[in-house]
Amino acid sequence: MSGRRIEIVEVSPRDGLQNEKQPVSTAQKLELVGRALAAGIRRVEATSFVNPKRVPQMADADAVMAGLKGRDDAAFIGLALNAKGVDRAIAAGCDEINFVVVASDTFNRKNQGVGTEESLAAWSAIARQAKAAGKRCSITIGAAFGCPFEGEVPATRVLDVAERALAAEPDEIALADTIGCGVPSQVTALLSGLKAMGGTAALRCHFHDTRGTGLANVAAAVEAGVDALDASIGGVGGCPFAPAATGNIATEDTVWMLERMGISTGIDVDALVAAAHWLEEVLGKRPPGAISRAGVFPPAPLAA
Amino acid sequence: MSGRRIEIVEVSPRDGLQNEKQPVSTAQKLELVGRALAAGIRRVEATSFVNPKRVPQMADADAVMAGLKGRDDAAFIGLALNAKGVDRAIAAGCDEINFVVVASDTFNRKNQGVGTEESLAAWSAIARQAKAAGKRCSITIGAAFGCPFEGEVPATRVLDVAERALAAEPDEIALADTIGCGVPSQVTALLSGLKAMGGTAALRCHFHDTRGTGLANVAAAVEAGVDALDASIGGVGGCPFAPAATGNIATEDTVWMLERMGISTGIDVDALVAAAHWLEEVLGKRPPGAISRAGVFPPAPLAA
Repeated sequence: MSGRRIEIVEVSPRDGLQNEKQPVSTAQKLELVGRALAAGIRRVEATSFVNPKRVPQMADADAVMAGLKGRDDAAFIGLALNAKGVDRAIAAGCDEINFVVVASDTFNRKNQGVGTEESLAAWSAIARQAKAAGKRCSITIGAAFGCPFEGEVPATRVLDVAERALAAEPDEIALADTIGCGVPSQVTALLSGLKAMGGTAALRCHFHDTRGTGLANVAAAVEAGVDALDASIGGVGGCPFAPAATGNIATEDTVWMLERMGISTGIDVDALVAAAHWLEEVLGKRPPGAISRAGVFPPAPLAA
Repeated sequence: MSGRRIEIVEVSPRDGLQNEKQPVSTAQKLELVGRALAAGIRRVEATSFVNPKRVPQMADADAVMAGLKGRDDAAFIGLALNAKGVDRAIAAGCDEINFVVVASDTFNRKNQGVGTEESLAAWSAIARQAKAAGKRCSITIGAAFGCPFEGEVPATRVLDVAERALAAEPDEIALADTIGCGVPSQVTALLSGLKAMGGTAALRCHFHDTRGTGLANVAAAVEAGVDALDASIGGVGGCPFAPAATGNIATEDTVWMLERMGISTGIDVDALVAAAHWLEEVLGKRPPGAISRAGVFPPAPLAA
């Protein structure tokens, strides 16, 4: 795998913060994005255009995007779940629309108020809407490795949802382990199933480290040919509608492991560690990532 | 990999507890071993026969082994670093002697007072001594993935130490990521190098989860054909002579991931989780393992 390049999508401003009870100011969110960009990240899930009553932390979506105007060195993704959200994301200047459909019907209803079928139907229209506006569009399949309400989600079900999602010809499709219950053999099987469908959509994975398998799943995904990985600085995150969901894989841990494996990310791990420490101050609690506590290995040589 | 069987060696009574400041009573250690055996574990690193002034928590090595007399359903390993320790381990009734040599010279000196060369020479005699007493003998190569004092340890160095260790024809050889700085590509390369040496020694790995790569390394080791894995209930552990070393991979997390991947361990994960909760009470602090907090997935079905 050495010599490969993997794209990291920084999701801390959206998935990382959406579950935080304590309000994070727009200025702090912009500093978070600024730190990610300074570290070398070139694609950021900046915010979501959803009902602010349901996800209060994302109420400043327009202000966040306004603050990122002129940052032409990176692509900013806005998450949207309906036509109104897509309109808002386009108006706010997002470069890419990300839509979510959850592979389990119960979780899809909890997350977005309708069943998987209705969300898939909505997705077709949303993909057209985004493309008509000249935007990249991607779709994330939630609970692809297991559901907090239904338990196991059969791979055949996930791949069926994926196949129908691919019919709208997105630029990218992602498999999300929303509650962090996935293991490497599932990653291998699902990505292999996706690859077998052909097509030109890039493959992204979105892992949470709830049960210690986050980086194991990263390694399996890289081995299986994934193009991009979602991660959040500090490993912050969680889903407001999924019980016991914990943080995304930490960007700094992911980048450290990949670079140590000879896989290029173009990202400076020390800058990410500094950002994780900064985020710890902002949130007033220690983020779950490992490297920010244990230190990068090998440590930088002492100055002579 | 589905259908494979991996042996789990429970190391919490030795590596898991040796770094604990708070004394753990012999009775508590015996309950810990009893819980491991009740969960289905059949091989336990029960204690070490080292200088009690250097590792006070292991001062009751003889009493621990005395308390395990008659438990013929499992094999008990005693760690020993010199002939006197081996004599003690044999007298105490250990089934197997485990010796450690550290791949980096500086760390070997900190750990056992002599350089790697002297330890390798001692190992030959110790292997003969253990075999003459009819005991299994194994050797663990410490700091095989990196050293807290020297930084990177070249794979050529690790494999050279391994080749010389194998000359004594141990029953098993282990690669230890003593400070948790290893990544899957190293696991693959080192195990592949070991396998290329041929011979009949079983292959074991010993991982710490200091930087989030514990289970990623497990998956890589299984893929590369490892026979056995060290793990500790709760993920407790650390090395008194390695700065910033944290716990071993948690037995319950490891077993959960392997079983979910279709790899058999013969161990009941729920019993391990209960043991981790019990150990939390004993130590008065939350162990680092993930499953004991997040819950096994999928959860057991509710009783009708």
